[in-house]
Amino acid sequence: MATHHNCSSVKSGFQSPVSRRKSENRKQGLRVAIVGATGLVGGELLQILEQRRFPVGELLPFSSGSKRTSVRFYGRRVSAPAVSYPALHSADLVFLASSDDVARRYGPALAKAGVWVIDDSSAFRLHTGVPLVIPEVNSQSLSPRRRLIAGPNCTATGPAVAGYPLVKAAGVKALRLASYQAVSGAGRAALDEFVSQMNAFKPSRQGWKGLAAKLTSLRSNIFPQPIALNLFPQVGNFDAQGFSGEETKIALELRKIWNIPNLKISATAVRVPVLRGHSIACWIETRRPLSPARARALLRRAPGIRLWDKNYPTPRDAQGTWPVHVGRVRAGTSPNELCLWMVSDNLLKGAALNSAQIAETLLSRGWLRA
Amino acid sequence: MATHHNCSSVKSGFQSPVSRRKSENRKQGLRVAIVGATGLVGGELLQILEQRRFPVGELLPFSSGSKRTSVRFYGRRVSAPAVSYPALHSADLVFLASSDDVARRYGPALAKAGVWVIDDSSAFRLHTGVPLVIPEVNSQSLSPRRRLIAGPNCTATGPAVAGYPLVKAAGVKALRLASYQAVSGAGRAALDEFVSQMNAFKPSRQGWKGLAAKLTSLRSNIFPQPIALNLFPQVGNFDAQGFSGEETKIALELRKIWNIPNLKISATAVRVPVLRGHSIACWIETRRPLSPARARALLRRAPGIRLWDKNYPTPRDAQGTWPVHVGRVRAGTSPNELCLWMVSDNLLKGAALNSAQIAETLLSRGWLRA
Repeated sequence: MATHHNCSSVKSGFQSPVSRRKSENRKQGLRVAIVGATGLVGGELLQILEQRRFPVGELLPFSSGSKRTSVRFYGRRVSAPAVSYPALHSADLVFLASSDDVARRYGPALAKAGVWVIDDSSAFRLHTGVPLVIPEVNSQSLSPRRRLIAGPNCTATGPAVAGYPLVKAAGVKALRLASYQAVSGAGRAALDEFVSQMNAFKPSRQGWKGLAAKLTSLRSNIFPQPIALNLFPQVGNFDAQGFSGEETKIALELRKIWNIPNLKISATAVRVPVLRGHSIACWIETRRPLSPARARALLRRAPGIRLWDKNYPTPRDAQGTWPVHVGRVRAGTSPNELCLWMVSDNLLKGAALNSAQIAETLLSRGWLRA
Repeated sequence: MATHHNCSSVKSGFQSPVSRRKSENRKQGLRVAIVGATGLVGGELLQILEQRRFPVGELLPFSSGSKRTSVRFYGRRVSAPAVSYPALHSADLVFLASSDDVARRYGPALAKAGVWVIDDSSAFRLHTGVPLVIPEVNSQSLSPRRRLIAGPNCTATGPAVAGYPLVKAAGVKALRLASYQAVSGAGRAALDEFVSQMNAFKPSRQGWKGLAAKLTSLRSNIFPQPIALNLFPQVGNFDAQGFSGEETKIALELRKIWNIPNLKISATAVRVPVLRGHSIACWIETRRPLSPARARALLRRAPGIRLWDKNYPTPRDAQGTWPVHVGRVRAGTSPNELCLWMVSDNLLKGAALNSAQIAETLLSRGWLRA
């Protein structure tokens, strides 16, 4: 196993600043690599590792295609070079916050070599040998023998967490959901395009009619349609049956996370002009009747959920926060159906936070030792 | 019957410019009053009456609370004073594009006196004696004896039109829908608030993080929450069971329009940062199986619908257009369920256009004569 790595590294404030190799004293913390550290999710992950005092002994950040070449960790600037296998191989834990291609290139090889790999891409989520994990829901699928672990799609996370206590209590016949997905879910280039479209709307004496006229002239490169003052029901590409990639992911991933292979799910995934926070209107048809009051009681004590009893959450409330916010719990079309509204930060619980929680679970089980 | 009216009037280009009273030669066109002519829907209605060459002999526009005191019709500026009953009473046809209160004050009395009244408020939509009409769907509910006619809620219109050919062909067990409602559906004050919130986002060197920070400081007066770069699942007030006013309207109005009193409907109504165009993700559970291909064939030839076969409509596509745009027709959770996406201009098919079409239907039946 190569232990040399060709990138700069930083020691977190949490640990002694003495540089160390993997074979050295483990009490100094873990050697943690992040692929895609310069991306949106990578940036959030760095913050979360600080905020949750994750035992990072040495940080190995790697860029993956972004123009940025450094990151900040505990106030220090750390160079983030292009990724290299030997450097990743020297780590105890590798977070893959990058593309499916990058995940395929490094994930299985690292796991086979004994490195714990937590992948936020969609490359391995549906592979039978790879646990697809939300710690509040299915941490039992983790195993010391399965070192490549996937985190779910950012839109699947909300219903997976919020639906779980209800499904556990009353069973589930079918799930229908409509999403309101923030632009940050599509990455930094999409966000930049959104910001530049927002900037194109100058205050005008024509008021809203001026904005409406401007909207017709907007063009987009990253997204299939302009997103500012607009929205579109396309997240990913469409298959022959007319389902978008996102809709298919939501269905297949929820079945795997809940371990209900035949679960009926229908999703409509929609991109909306919001910066961060994926909202979802969700109908859960249960096998046994479940009253809204009982559902609220279950949700109130479930981990990872903040129940809004009197009011409801919005993306503005959820941005930068950790829980899945749930509100508007009410009856659906029958006593066997509940209708819910949920919002979660797609970059946090939908991505970086969930990955960090998986790593913390590995620590708590003693499979990963700082 | 009083025939004097205390407001200025204008003769349309369509007709001879000679002023006339109701008792005069009808060939010169109808005496048409618009209450709320200075509002958003009133403004669209004026344009539509021009575009569709509706036989307006004399226009009596009235403001209702707005600061504006005149409107434009066929290029001329026409004064729009406060509404008065005698003036309305002198009209052949009165469009009420104003509040429930205004509708309650004038609608029944005018209809009783023989004036045709087309009301876009929600005051009478559910009254048994009042037809709730979308001409493409239920023009048979019109009658020469029922002179007070209601147009539906702007969010109910899309599913009422697009669902009708499917429900007619395969029956319906349940309808679920999530809305993405434009700000203009809440009126001019809400639009002004939205525009001022949009203007608060200055281009900044911080990019999207600057916008996200600004969002947290936004305040709202008209809406319960900031709407720019945000969205919220509240349209109207909540009842004790947790349903918003809009959600209840959608359910009750669809049952009446389709004449299916026991139809199961569950709606989640959400306001989004879009200027105009209400989008809806909709699931229709049918009594008999209905394939997406057959559904598309039915939708393609149904009146009032533009089917998007290859692509899908967005609010940007729908703004300023007349049809209900339908796309993404695909299977739901079973062969007895279809999932659809639709967008329609809430100020046009959702309000002004539908009212004009009702008036045209009255003309075509000879109940209203120009």
